[in-house]
Amino acid sequence: MFQAPRGTQDILPEDQSYWRYIEKVAGRVTRLYGFERIDTPIFEEAGLFVRSVGVGTDIVEKEMYTFTDLGGGEMTLRPEGTASVCRAYIEHGMASLPQPVKLYYHASIFRYERPQAGRFREHHQFGCEAIGDESAAVDAEVIDMAWHFFEALGLTDLKLQVNSIGCPQCRPAHLAALKEYFQPLTLCADCQVRFKKNTLRLLDCKNPTCQTQIMGAPRSIDHLCQACATHFSDLKGHLKQLELPFNIDASLVRGLDYYTRTVFEIQPGLEGAQSTLGGGGRYDGLIAEIGAKPTPGVGFATGMERIILNLKRQNVAVPPNPRPDVLLAWVGEEAQGLAIRLAALLRRVGVNAVSIYSPRSLKAQLRLANTLGCTYAVIIGEAELAQGVVTLRDMQAANQEEITPEALVAKLGQG
Amino acid sequence: MFQAPRGTQDILPEDQSYWRYIEKVAGRVTRLYGFERIDTPIFEEAGLFVRSVGVGTDIVEKEMYTFTDLGGGEMTLRPEGTASVCRAYIEHGMASLPQPVKLYYHASIFRYERPQAGRFREHHQFGCEAIGDESAAVDAEVIDMAWHFFEALGLTDLKLQVNSIGCPQCRPAHLAALKEYFQPLTLCADCQVRFKKNTLRLLDCKNPTCQTQIMGAPRSIDHLCQACATHFSDLKGHLKQLELPFNIDASLVRGLDYYTRTVFEIQPGLEGAQSTLGGGGRYDGLIAEIGAKPTPGVGFATGMERIILNLKRQNVAVPPNPRPDVLLAWVGEEAQGLAIRLAALLRRVGVNAVSIYSPRSLKAQLRLANTLGCTYAVIIGEAELAQGVVTLRDMQAANQEEITPEALVAKLGQG
Repeated sequence: MFQAPRGTQDILPEDQSYWRYIEKVAGRVTRLYGFERIDTPIFEEAGLFVRSVGVGTDIVEKEMYTFTDLGGGEMTLRPEGTASVCRAYIEHGMASLPQPVKLYYHASIFRYERPQAGRFREHHQFGCEAIGDESAAVDAEVIDMAWHFFEALGLTDLKLQVNSIGCPQCRPAHLAALKEYFQPLTLCADCQVRFKKNTLRLLDCKNPTCQTQIMGAPRSIDHLCQACATHFSDLKGHLKQLELPFNIDASLVRGLDYYTRTVFEIQPGLEGAQSTLGGGGRYDGLIAEIGAKPTPGVGFATGMERIILNLKRQNVAVPPNPRPDVLLAWVGEEAQGLAIRLAALLRRVGVNAVSIYSPRSLKAQLRLANTLGCTYAVIIGEAELAQGVVTLRDMQAANQEEITPEALVAKLGQG
Repeated sequence: MFQAPRGTQDILPEDQSYWRYIEKVAGRVTRLYGFERIDTPIFEEAGLFVRSVGVGTDIVEKEMYTFTDLGGGEMTLRPEGTASVCRAYIEHGMASLPQPVKLYYHASIFRYERPQAGRFREHHQFGCEAIGDESAAVDAEVIDMAWHFFEALGLTDLKLQVNSIGCPQCRPAHLAALKEYFQPLTLCADCQVRFKKNTLRLLDCKNPTCQTQIMGAPRSIDHLCQACATHFSDLKGHLKQLELPFNIDASLVRGLDYYTRTVFEIQPGLEGAQSTLGGGGRYDGLIAEIGAKPTPGVGFATGMERIILNLKRQNVAVPPNPRPDVLLAWVGEEAQGLAIRLAALLRRVGVNAVSIYSPRSLKAQLRLANTLGCTYAVIIGEAELAQGVVTLRDMQAANQEEITPEALVAKLGQG
């Protein structure tokens, strides 16, 4: 018996209302901020992610779905959204558009994670990228949009954490301080590799002992160069202008190599909540890293499954799936012919109509109309056919009237 | 320099209006017919598609993206939509719901095709499945929905082709007739394999010589068993009740093994158009083939890229991407602070507002407002700050007024 692959899941009709709701809010909020949608392929050349996400990150080292295609190309199922959007920005010459170019996406994301609650091998992200302007005002706007998005969803008790992890100018001093700090400490096996290969990634370790040690590690914000310090100070100023309450979290680095300067996360405030709703940051080195002229960028991404978890936890009501307006019940072959015609006519005037296909008792058909939550049932039997009418039954009021097919279409078509 | 992998493409903002339009129409039409959305994972166990699509089909033999994941599982990027939905139907016990279960999906589809116009290695399908009822009335409704969908999109000159390819009872006689017919003919290399391995697939060959021979091949509708003949006759009756004009195309078999009885295609009528907008059929053996108790089903799928090609060819106008309502132009740091606050306030009252992040001349900012198609520009300079007002410029009328920030938010928030 086949099942959905481990770590993946079907989104069934009963959960779809959450997805449609989030997509609708995302569409509205991105429009308010002038972001336009982009979609990129599910897979890209593997090198794109190795270059951008970085050797030494957990994603590249352990989690990528990389395969060789039938033509010998090495492809990777997208493990995050930003690199693909930057590749598209370069490939389509978007540097010639007004900058920054503001894009958003809805995308399946693939990471070979150990299955556990809230971790999926395929999950779905909504994200946005603003590419081509290094002003801290862009960072502030992206953060404001993320905040606005979560608020518009109806989530409450949000917390905003920000940090600056500097740039290639100031990072060496921070890395040297980290090496000095971690040198005498006992590190987990992964961290021993990180120490040599990609020191900043020591701060990503989830090992409890390492986590305790991370808390006392040297902070990037104490090692910022003048330009990064000004950028961070501008960002804080803009967040105050926006009246967004924020905390500085010096341990926040996010697990991708491409970040520079601003990193941030938005967390749900409720106790016991998963730690992050979404986050992002600035990636001024990414586009140069993947082969184009240096171009700054800043973005944000959030997991749909994570959002739904929090919507449910906070009991946020979302608009339910639409119900059928009418069920067409029939008895006998001739009645079925009329039911088929009527269903088509009703749908052409905007009525959500469901049909019965194989013969069933009238009782079973009316029971189904109830189960499906239909407003009306239309009943067509021998008596109705003889009189050239149909019976229109109001399922809630449980009363009914006889009406010609033409009048029925006119009546329900107005509703 | 990285590029989108061959045969894949980015969907850029300027094309997104087509995608949003089609999704919106698909949402409306599926609702009218009582179909509910399902999403399934991008990849499944390879065996699911080998079993359902069938050994000997072009898809399974040449076109699947199959890879071994880090845990040793053999996975395939979905090469079509139906098998996954049927797998979900079984896995989630949907046989206990009222039958048929009516589902639709929007899905990325992957086939390693030789790149050519209109052929992609990743393309996107909208499809629907009605699982659990064998009545020809379901086939007719699925066909009516597909037709209604294309009409609602604004496509004209549609043509409907239908055929019945029978069932396991009547197929042996048809296959024997095909073998007898093709035996003495010269076949291409692929067809020599098909002849032995999967005779019905001879009718899928795209080789020009084979195509000529296919035209004279024995027809499945001349070999139907009594039950299949009745089903086909019922279908034709229902299509007449629905007043859907149709042709019987005896050469129509569709390239997947799971079809039984009804197969159909809807074609755009314009000359030079690609041959098919979408199609589908009945697959009463599929669910048993993948390991559950025999359950009938019928479905339809259409390619988004193919639809867009035809919308453009027929000059169907789609609603354009939304434009910003207002651009906030500023000169000086203090003005920027007010612009940032005002943009946030305007967005909270539903105004689509775009900001300037790095200093630019006022002229450049107003030019950008024009380029972006903004209805208004709000100008904040030293003079405005001194008087506690902003200048609201109507970009179309090219006139302007001074207004307090509070009045601005109130005025634009009503629009």
